[in-house]
Amino acid sequence: MAIKTYEQYLASLRAMRPNIHKFDELITDVTTHPATKRTVEGHGWTYKGAFDEQLRPKLTTTSHLTGEPISRYLSILQSPEDMYANSDMKRMMFNLTGTCTGGRCAGWTALNAMFITTWEMDRDLKTDYHQRFLKWLKDAQARDITISGALTDAKGDRAKAPAQQEDKDVFLRVVEKRADGIVVRGAKVMICGIAAANEIFVIPGTGYRDDETEFAVSFVIPRDIEGLTIVETRHPNDTRDEEEGFDNPVTEGGITQAFLFFEDVFIPNDRVFMCGETKYTLSTVGYFIMPYRSAIGGCVAGQGDIKIGSAILTARANGLSAKVFNEKLTQMYINNETTYGMGIAAAARGKKHPSGAWLCDPLLANVNKVHVATLPYQTSVLAQDIAGGIAETGCMPSYKDFQSKKYGHLIAKYMKAKASAESRARAARLVEWCTLGSGVPGCMHGGGSPDGAKLVIRANAKLEDKVAIARRLAGITEEITEPVVAKK
Amino acid sequence: MAIKTYEQYLASLRAMRPNIHKFDELITDVTTHPATKRTVEGHGWTYKGAFDEQLRPKLTTTSHLTGEPISRYLSILQSPEDMYANSDMKRMMFNLTGTCTGGRCAGWTALNAMFITTWEMDRDLKTDYHQRFLKWLKDAQARDITISGALTDAKGDRAKAPAQQEDKDVFLRVVEKRADGIVVRGAKVMICGIAAANEIFVIPGTGYRDDETEFAVSFVIPRDIEGLTIVETRHPNDTRDEEEGFDNPVTEGGITQAFLFFEDVFIPNDRVFMCGETKYTLSTVGYFIMPYRSAIGGCVAGQGDIKIGSAILTARANGLSAKVFNEKLTQMYINNETTYGMGIAAAARGKKHPSGAWLCDPLLANVNKVHVATLPYQTSVLAQDIAGGIAETGCMPSYKDFQSKKYGHLIAKYMKAKASAESRARAARLVEWCTLGSGVPGCMHGGGSPDGAKLVIRANAKLEDKVAIARRLAGITEEITEPVVAKK
Amino acid sequence: MAIKTYEQYLASLRAMRPNIHKFDELITDVTTHPATKRTVEGHGWTYKGAFDEQLRPKLTTTSHLTGEPISRYLSILQSPEDMYANSDMKRMMFNLTGTCTGGRCAGWTALNAMFITTWEMDRDLKTDYHQRFLKWLKDAQARDITISGALTDAKGDRAKAPAQQEDKDVFLRVVEKRADGIVVRGAKVMICGIAAANEIFVIPGTGYRDDETEFAVSFVIPRDIEGLTIVETRHPNDTRDEEEGFDNPVTEGGITQAFLFFEDVFIPNDRVFMCGETKYTLSTVGYFIMPYRSAIGGCVAGQGDIKIGSAILTARANGLSAKVFNEKLTQMYINNETTYGMGIAAAARGKKHPSGAWLCDPLLANVNKVHVATLPYQTSVLAQDIAGGIAETGCMPSYKDFQSKKYGHLIAKYMKAKASAESRARAARLVEWCTLGSGVPGCMHGGGSPDGAKLVIRANAKLEDKVAIARRLAGITEEITEPVVAKK
Amino acid sequence: MAIKTYEQYLASLRAMRPNIHKFDELITDVTTHPATKRTVEGHGWTYKGAFDEQLRPKLTTTSHLTGEPISRYLSILQSPEDMYANSDMKRMMFNLTGTCTGGRCAGWTALNAMFITTWEMDRDLKTDYHQRFLKWLKDAQARDITISGALTDAKGDRAKAPAQQEDKDVFLRVVEKRADGIVVRGAKVMICGIAAANEIFVIPGTGYRDDETEFAVSFVIPRDIEGLTIVETRHPNDTRDEEEGFDNPVTEGGITQAFLFFEDVFIPNDRVFMCGETKYTLSTVGYFIMPYRSAIGGCVAGQGDIKIGSAILTARANGLSAKVFNEKLTQMYINNETTYGMGIAAAARGKKHPSGAWLCDPLLANVNKVHVATLPYQTSVLAQDIAGGIAETGCMPSYKDFQSKKYGHLIAKYMKAKASAESRARAARLVEWCTLGSGVPGCMHGGGSPDGAKLVIRANAKLEDKVAIARRLAGITEEITEPVVAKK
Repeated sequence: MAIKTYEQYLASLRAMRPNIHKFDELITDVTTHPATKRTVEGHGWTYKGAFDEQLRPKLTTTSHLTGEPISRYLSILQSPEDMYANSDMKRMMFNLTGTCTGGRCAGWTALNAMFITTWEMDRDLKTDYHQRFLKWLKDAQARDITISGALTDAKGDRAKAPAQQEDKDVFLRVVEKRADGIVVRGAKVMICGIAAANEIFVIPGTGYRDDETEFAVSFVIPRDIEGLTIVETRHPNDTRDEEEGFDNPVTEGGITQAFLFFEDVFIPNDRVFMCGETKYTLSTVGYFIMPYRSAIGGCVAGQGDIKIGSAILTARANGLSAKVFNEKLTQMYINNETTYGMGIAAAARGKKHPSGAWLCDPLLANVNKVHVATLPYQTSVLAQDIAGGIAETGCMPSYKDFQSKKYGHLIAKYMKAKASAESRARAARLVEWCTLGSGVPGCMHGGGSPDGAKLVIRANAKLEDKVAIARRLAGITEEITEPVVAKK
Repeated sequence: MAIKTYEQYLASLRAMRPNIHKFDELITDVTTHPATKRTVEGHGWTYKGAFDEQLRPKLTTTSHLTGEPISRYLSILQSPEDMYANSDMKRMMFNLTGTCTGGRCAGWTALNAMFITTWEMDRDLKTDYHQRFLKWLKDAQARDITISGALTDAKGDRAKAPAQQEDKDVFLRVVEKRADGIVVRGAKVMICGIAAANEIFVIPGTGYRDDETEFAVSFVIPRDIEGLTIVETRHPNDTRDEEEGFDNPVTEGGITQAFLFFEDVFIPNDRVFMCGETKYTLSTVGYFIMPYRSAIGGCVAGQGDIKIGSAILTARANGLSAKVFNEKLTQMYINNETTYGMGIAAAARGKKHPSGAWLCDPLLANVNKVHVATLPYQTSVLAQDIAGGIAETGCMPSYKDFQSKKYGHLIAKYMKAKASAESRARAARLVEWCTLGSGVPGCMHGGGSPDGAKLVIRANAKLEDKVAIARRLAGITEEITEPVVAKK
Repeated sequence: MAIKTYEQYLASLRAMRPNIHKFDELITDVTTHPATKRTVEGHGWTYKGAFDEQLRPKLTTTSHLTGEPISRYLSILQSPEDMYANSDMKRMMFNLTGTCTGGRCAGWTALNAMFITTWEMDRDLKTDYHQRFLKWLKDAQARDITISGALTDAKGDRAKAPAQQEDKDVFLRVVEKRADGIVVRGAKVMICGIAAANEIFVIPGTGYRDDETEFAVSFVIPRDIEGLTIVETRHPNDTRDEEEGFDNPVTEGGITQAFLFFEDVFIPNDRVFMCGETKYTLSTVGYFIMPYRSAIGGCVAGQGDIKIGSAILTARANGLSAKVFNEKLTQMYINNETTYGMGIAAAARGKKHPSGAWLCDPLLANVNKVHVATLPYQTSVLAQDIAGGIAETGCMPSYKDFQSKKYGHLIAKYMKAKASAESRARAARLVEWCTLGSGVPGCMHGGGSPDGAKLVIRANAKLEDKVAIARRLAGITEEITEPVVAKK
Repeated sequence: MAIKTYEQYLASLRAMRPNIHKFDELITDVTTHPATKRTVEGHGWTYKGAFDEQLRPKLTTTSHLTGEPISRYLSILQSPEDMYANSDMKRMMFNLTGTCTGGRCAGWTALNAMFITTWEMDRDLKTDYHQRFLKWLKDAQARDITISGALTDAKGDRAKAPAQQEDKDVFLRVVEKRADGIVVRGAKVMICGIAAANEIFVIPGTGYRDDETEFAVSFVIPRDIEGLTIVETRHPNDTRDEEEGFDNPVTEGGITQAFLFFEDVFIPNDRVFMCGETKYTLSTVGYFIMPYRSAIGGCVAGQGDIKIGSAILTARANGLSAKVFNEKLTQMYINNETTYGMGIAAAARGKKHPSGAWLCDPLLANVNKVHVATLPYQTSVLAQDIAGGIAETGCMPSYKDFQSKKYGHLIAKYMKAKASAESRARAARLVEWCTLGSGVPGCMHGGGSPDGAKLVIRANAKLEDKVAIARRLAGITEEITEPVVAKK
C-alpha cells in the first residue's frame, strides 16, 4: 500500500485518539469538525491527486529506498530536479486548495533535514541514528502517512538563553533518559496542519551551545501519543470557516496552526534521531530552512495565481476588462515569478551532500525568504486594488442576508453588475479570503523571520571579497581596515 | 443644547425606528446589539470627549452661523487652520477608538460639499437651496446630531452609463416629484457608521450628463425614514467582534458599512438640496473629495500610531528592545507623517471659495489619496514584522482556551515571555486587529479609488507647462507636437 | 540700491580678488571662465528676475528691518507664508536654470539660523551679537549681495571627536582672539555656488561639547578675504560644461561646489556672530536644517518638473504620445508634489520663535529630507525609462560629430524621427543632464544625510506616546518596560 | 590557434582599417587612442584570463563542433549548465573590469540566436544557411575573434511602420541582391564595444511583416568592411576617461557604444544568414533576448559587487564600520542576487530546442529584465548613501588639484580621514564612476526596454489559467467573459 486512497487517509485520521482542542472543546473527529475538516480536505488532495492522471506526476515520485512509487512528501531530495518538482507540487497544491499543505510540507522538510543530520552523526559519532531513521522512513513510505513538522519552541523571554529562563520548559527538553527511550517536556508552537497529520516530526528549533544538551532532541511520534495535548490557535476569520454558504469561499483547504504541549511524553528509542548532540543542532536548522525557503517561493506564487485570477474575475463581474489592469497584473506576475524563480535558482546552484541529499544554495534561498516575506503583500494590495471596494474588506451583505426573504431580492437587484450578485460576491469573497481572510498564510514568519534570513544572507554574502574587487579596480594600495569601534 | 452628552446621544439612537439588519436579523437596539454597539461606543467618544478638558479643543469649535460651541463634525471649513484642526481631530479619534469615526466623517464632508454647491446653485439659478441648507444646518448644530454621508451608488455594469443599465435603479434616482417633496428609489452602498448616525446626508456619487437629471439629487434624511431598509455588511473577523474576552481587543470602536435600499422614499422639500441640476454634480463630488482626501491622511496616521505602539508593546512583551527595530520604526513614522503632512499641505495651499468655504488643493489632496491607498499597507507589514509570528496571523489560542480548566495553565506557562501570557496576547491581538482583523479600514477605496485619484492628479498636473520649461532650457525651437495616434 | 541689476551683479563679482582655482589654475574672472560662468549666469536670474513683472513677486519681498523691497534671499522668515513663498521661489529657480541656486540658498538659511541664535545668545548672555548681525544684515540688504553659506567641516576620522583628531584643523577653529577680531584656521568643504557669491556666511557644522569652544564659531566674510584659498571640485561631466554646442544643454545654470581653505584668516569683530558659545551650536544646526529641509522639497520638485518635461519632449520627438506614459508620469507627479507638499506641511505646522522668526516643524521637515534623498532618484529612472536609450546614458554622437563634414549628414539622416535629429538630441541631452550629467544635484547628502534626518525623526516621533495609546486600547495593565539589553 | 594571447588580440585590432570616429576625428589605433583603449583593455581580459589558471574555467569551454578549447564567447549554449557558466563569466568580467564586455556579449548572443534560426530555416525552407553558419563559426572559433552584435535599427518615427517611413533606410535593408552576395544600406545604432571587435554579427532588430522582406537580413562582417562608417557616441563623463590620474579610477575597462552607418555595403553569400525570410525575424529576436535577459542578471550583479565594495571602502576610509550599514548592505546583496538568481532560474526551467540549443524560459527571463532595469538603480542609491557626499556627485578636487604645488598640501591635509586623502578619493571616485560616471551601463534599455519585457511577460503569463483556478475555488458556474469594450 505505497499510495493510500482518500478514504483510507480519512479512516486513518478517524482511528486516532482525540487530543486536539479549540475554544476549550475536544474535537472528536477531525474529518467532520468544522474547525478542522477544511484543512483535512485540503490535505486530502495529496491522496486524491495521486489517482488522477494529470496530478500524479507532480504528487508522487519513486522511493530511492525501495524503488516503489511514493508520495513526493515522503521522498528524499537528491537533485535540483527534485527541488523543482517540489516547488511545482507546492504551487499546484495552492492552486487546488487556495492555501498551504502545511501538515505535510514542514514534516517533509524536517525529515529531509534529519536524513542529513543522522547521516553526519553516524559518520562522526558512530551512532545508529541514520539506520533508525531509514527504517522508520521506509515504513512511513509504505504506510503513506501524513507527517507534520514541529520546530518552534515557546522560547520565553527572548532576551535570555534557554538555561537562563525562569522555566526551562519553554524550550522542549529531555527530562529523562531510559534504556528504552526518552521522556520529553515542553511545547512546540504554531505547528501547521496538525489536524491533518498522522505523525509529527520534531527537530530542534535553534542552535544550542555545548552545555545545552537537554534541548538537542529530535524524534517522530504519532499525533495522538499519550501526554500530548494539542490546542488549535485562532486565525483571522476562523469562525467564518465554520459557517455555511459562500462567505468563506474555499471549502477544500484551510490553514490551522496548533500549540503542542508535551507533558512528560515517552518516546521509544527507534523513534529518537537526536538526543544531546548539540553541535548538530544549528546545521539541522540550516538543513531545514534551505529547502523550505526555496520551495516556499512556489507556495506564495501558487497563492499569487489565485489573487490574480480572483481579482480579474471580480473586475470582469463588475464589467471591467482585464486590459485596464495590465500594469498591475504585470507587477503581480513579476512578484509571483520572482519568488518562484529564486527558489528554483537556489536549487539549481545547490550542491550534493555526501549523504546523497541535495543542498540548496543558502544565499539564494534566504534572499528568496525575504522576497516571500514582502512581495505577496504587494500582490495582495494589487488584488484589492483591481477588485475594488467590495473585495478590499469584503464589504458585502452576508450569505444569510442574500437568502433573506425580506430583502434578499434587493441585494440581488443592487449587487448585480455584469455578472449576477452571487457570482460577484463569490469572486470578491475569494479576493477577501486570500488577502485579508482566513486564507492568508503566515508567509512572513513561517519558516523563520525575514530578519533571520537577513542574518544568513550577511553570513554568506562575502563582503570582503567585494571589497577586494573594488580595491583592485580603484588601485588602492593603502591598507584600509574595518574600524574597531563604529561611530554613527 | 449645542453639545449633547453621551447618554443623550445613546438615547437619541434608541429612540429611532429599527431598520438595520445583519445576518437576516433586525437589530432592535443599536446601542447594545453586538454587531453595532462597538461602533456606537466609538462614535460616542465625540460626545464624551466634548466634556473632557483635554479633548474638547479638538472636538468642538464655534458655529459661524450662531457663534455657539458646536461639534467640529457639524462645522463649515473656512480656513486652512480649520482643516488642520480637522486632521488633528481625526488622528485623535483613531488614537482613541482604534479606527474610523465614519458615521460622522463622511456626513461632515458631504454637508461641506453641499454648503458650496447650494451656494453656487442659488447664485446661478436663483434657487433657495442654500437657505434651506443653512436652516437645516443650524438646526442640526442645535440638536448636535450625528450625520452619516452617502455617496456611492450600486452602479451596475461598470461598462455602461446610468441610462444604459438594464435596471436604472442601480443609480439612486428621483422617481416622482411632488409639490411638497420628492420620491427616490435606488441604493447607496458601503455606507460607513450608519448604526451610529441620526441622519444621513445623500449626495451624487459621480458627475452626470445633461440628460441624466433624475440621478442628480441631494438630500438629508433621518436614518429611520419610512421606506429605507438597511443591511450591514460583513467585514473581516466580524463575528469575533461579538465575542467576549480579549480576542477582539478593542471594545470602544469598530467599523460598520451598510447597504441602504431606498424603496420609494419620500423626502420633504426643506431637506432636498439638489434635484436635477446635473451640471453641479461633478463639482459636488470634487468638493467632497478634496477635504476628504486631505483629512484622511490624519486618519491613517492615527491608526499608524497604534500599529507602532502595539508592535512595540508586543516586541517588549517578547523581551526585545524597541531599538532593535529602529529602521522599521523610522519607516513607519515616515509613512504616518507623510499622509498626515500631505493633507496639511493640501489645506495650506488651498484657496477661499466665494461662499466662504476653504477649498483644499486638488493636486496635493489627490497625491495624498494615493499615499493613503499604499503607505498604510507597508506600515501594517512592518508592524507584523516587528511583532512576530503570533501577531502576523493572530496565531495564538483563543480567549476561551486561555480560560480552559483543562489546559489553560499550559497556555499561561508557555505563552509567558518577558510579560505575562495575557499581556502578550492582548498586545499581539491589537496588531492583528488593525493589520488583518476587523480594525482594518477600507483605506484604498474609501472616498474613491487610487485610480480615480490619479485621474485628478493628471488633470491638475500641468504637463504642457513642464514641457515648455524643458523646451526653453534645451533651446529647442522646432515645434514638437503630441502625436495624434499613440503606438506602444 | 536695494535691488541690483544683473550688470551690477556681474560687476561686483569681477571687482573681487581672484582666489578660486580649478584644475590647478587660478580663475581670474568667474563671470567668463567656462568652469564658473554658468553658475554665475544661473544666479544672475535672481537679479534679472527682480526686474521682470512675472518673476518679481516670487524673488523679492519687503525688509522687516527697513520696509524696503529686498531679495527674498536676504529676508528673515517670519510666517508660514514666507516659507511657502520660499519653496515656490526655489521651485521657480530650478525651472529657470535647471538646477540649484546654491550660492544664495545656503547663505540665506545660515543667516536665518544666526538671526535666531544671536537673539538667544543676547537674551541669555547679554552679548551684542544680534545687534551686530542686524547691522550687517541691513547693510547686506542695501547692497543686495549674494551670500553663500558654509557649514560642513573636513571632519577627519569620523570615529573620533574633534579634539581627538590628529590634526585639529579638520574642524574649522579659532586659533587666536584679538581685541579687534579673531583668526581662524581650517576648511569648509563642498560649499555650493561660491563663484557666484559676494560673501560667505559661516556657521558651525555640528553640535560641540562644552570643552570644544575653539570650534564654536560663526562669521561672515567677503569671498575674496585674505588667507582664503578656494578650490572648485569636480562634478560629473564637468568638462563637458566647458564645451561649445548642445551636448551640455543648459547654458544659464550649473552647480559648483568648492573646498574653502582658511589659512589664519582674520575676521573683524563686527562680522563675528559666535565665538566659543558651544551650547548654542547644536540648536544653530537645527535652526539651519529645519527651513533647509522644508524648502528643498520645492527644489527637487522644480528639477522634477524638468525631468517630466524633457522626457516627454524626447518621447514626442521619437513619435510617441505622452498618453503611453500616463502611469509613469503620474508617479513622477506624485514624487514631485510629495517633496514639495511635505515642505509646505513642515512650514504650516511650525511655530513662532520669540525672536519673531518662524520655525518649521522638525518631524515633518526631516521626513521630507528622507523623501528628498530617495524620490528624485525614482523620478530620474522614470525619465530615463520614458525617454529611451538615447537619454539613459546620453548615447548619441557628439555635437562635433553632428557638425562633421564627413558624416554629419548620416547622423542627421538616422537620428531624425518625428522631430529633427538636433531636436531629439537636445531633448535627450536635457534628460541625460539632469539624471546622469552635470545637472544632478547632491540631493541625498546636501543639507545633511538621510541617516542624520532619521535620527531627528526618531527624536521627535514620540514613541512612548504611541505605546501608551496602544496599551490603553489593548487593555493592558501590566507594566511592560523596555528591556535593558537588546538581543537580536 | 584556438585561444589567442592578449598580444595577438591587440595585433589583430591594429591590423584593421581605421573606420571609427569620435569628435569628428578618425581613430587610427583603437588600442592606444584614449577614447577606445580602455574598452580594448577590458575586453583584453578575456584573452589574458584564458591563460590564468583561476580564470580559465570560466572564460573557456570546449567546442561542440571540434572538441577544441574555445572562448566561451564563441560557444553554443546547449544546457542549463552552459547558461550558469555564462552568467558566472559575465559576473566575473564585471568584477575584473568594472563594466560590460559588450563587444563580445551581444555578438555571442546574436550568433546563438542565428544558430537556431538558420537551423529552422534549413529545416523548413531547404536553405543552406545553417551550414554556412557552422562553417563560419568553426573558423571564428579557430581564429578566436571578438564579435560584436548589432540589433537596433535607427527606427525613425516610432509611430510608423518601416515601409511608412519617409526614408526607409532608417531600418537596415537589402538594396541589391547579386549572385555572389547582397548590398545593404542603413544604420545600426548604440552598438556596444565595436572598437574592441574583429567582426560584427548583424541580426534583425524586430519582427517584420510578410511584405517587409528587404529588412529581414542577418550577416556577419569584418568591423573594417568597405562602406561602413562608425561613430562612437558620448557617454557620461567620457572626456574624463581620457585624462591622466585617478579621477577616472578604472583603467582596464570601459563602455563604448557606436552608430554604424552602412552605405551600400557588399556582403558575400557565405556570410549571409538570412535574406528576406520575414517570418523568422520575430523568433530570432526572441532567441536573442532570452539568453541575453537571463545572463544580464549576472552582469548587473557583477557591477553591484563593485558598488558594495567601493561604498564600504569609502566608509572605512572615512572611519566608519561596515556594520553601521548592515541594513543597506543587505538590500544591496538582495538586489544583486535577485538579478543573478532570476537569470539562473530562467536557464534552469528552459528547454532543449531540436537544433541542440538550450532555450531559457521566456517568462522568467523577462521578469529578470524588469529587475535588471530597476534594482541596480536602487543599489547605486544605496552605494551613494553609504559612501557619503564626496561619492554622491564626486564632489572632490581634481587629480590635478591634488598635485598642485600651491595648495595640494591643503587638499591632502583636509581630505585625510582614517585613510589618506588619495585613498579616500580613489574609493569615492569608484563609487561615482559606477553610479553616476562613465561606468554606468545602459541596463534599462540595453537588450530592449522594460516595457518590451512586460509585453513578453503578459504574453507568457497565462492569465486565463489563473482565472480558471480562481473560478473553480470560488465555485462560480456562471460564465463571466472579458468585456468587449473596456471602460475605466
